[in-house]
Amino acid sequence: MSSTRDTEEGLAFTPRYDANGLVTAVVTDAGNGDVLMVAHMNAEALAKTIATGEAWYYSRSRRTLWKKGEQSGHVQRVKELRVDCDQDALWLKVEQVGEGACHTGRRSCFYRAVPLGKSGAGMLEFRDAEKTFDPAKVYK
Amino acid sequence: MSSTRDTEEGLAFTPRYDANGLVTAVVTDAGNGDVLMVAHMNAEALAKTIATGEAWYYSRSRRTLWKKGEQSGHVQRVKELRVDCDQDALWLKVEQVGEGACHTGRRSCFYRAVPLGKSGAGMLEFRDAEKTFDPAKVYK
Repeated sequence: MSSTRDTEEGLAFTPRYDANGLVTAVVTDAGNGDVLMVAHMNAEALAKTIATGEAWYYSRSRRTLWKKGEQSGHVQRVKELRVDCDQDALWLKVEQVGEGACHTGRRSCFYRAVPLGKSGAGMLEFRDAEKTFDPAKVYK
Repeated sequence: MSSTRDTEEGLAFTPRYDANGLVTAVVTDAGNGDVLMVAHMNAEALAKTIATGEAWYYSRSRRTLWKKGEQSGHVQRVKELRVDCDQDALWLKVEQVGEGACHTGRRSCFYRAVPLGKSGAGMLEFRDAEKTFDPAKVYK
């Protein structure tokens, strides 16, 4: 068990997995900084990502390890991998191969904005929501 | 209960909270796109953020709602709030007021990189790790 100081100021990589054995992974486009997706990694996905330089994740819904792009060909080449202060979140700066990261056919999963300054539940607004590929053709 | 299609393609904002009532919030610098921090929001934190345009979160360790900057003065003015395809993650583009977002005294919580292409546990490397404020003075 490492101390808070070791975790925050040290150079030992000691990921703090949650009760399900996962850490949060934020994925940004290394080119323009846009957040492409948020996913999760278990220890095996993290080890494969570090060893290969391509992004692997753990699917909570399918309960399985998966390589990003294994079906679509839209792999992510990791240009830099960072860890946060308390080592329970990762930031991947990636080169997104192919037309997009989102299974809905968009470049980013974050294609809708929540209006600010309103009380109650406002309606979402599409932003950068054009589809860059046809998911029906990419995921068979 | 909305369908997957409604959640992904609709304009109704229906956040999917986890078993603990939380969604993941990724916070980036609206100016340069850097990821500043990853935090969590419950429904109340999200409602306050939307209503005020300043970021509120829920602390899992302290089990309490908190306004970013309530102690340090380093509030976050939300320029844009986006939601992802399955509505379980949020992306806040913020103007970070003050010297930094990280309680360790840095601008971003992601001040260490994990070397890629190595098997086994490599040592972390500091990146953009200079302290921009003295946490002992800011958090009393």
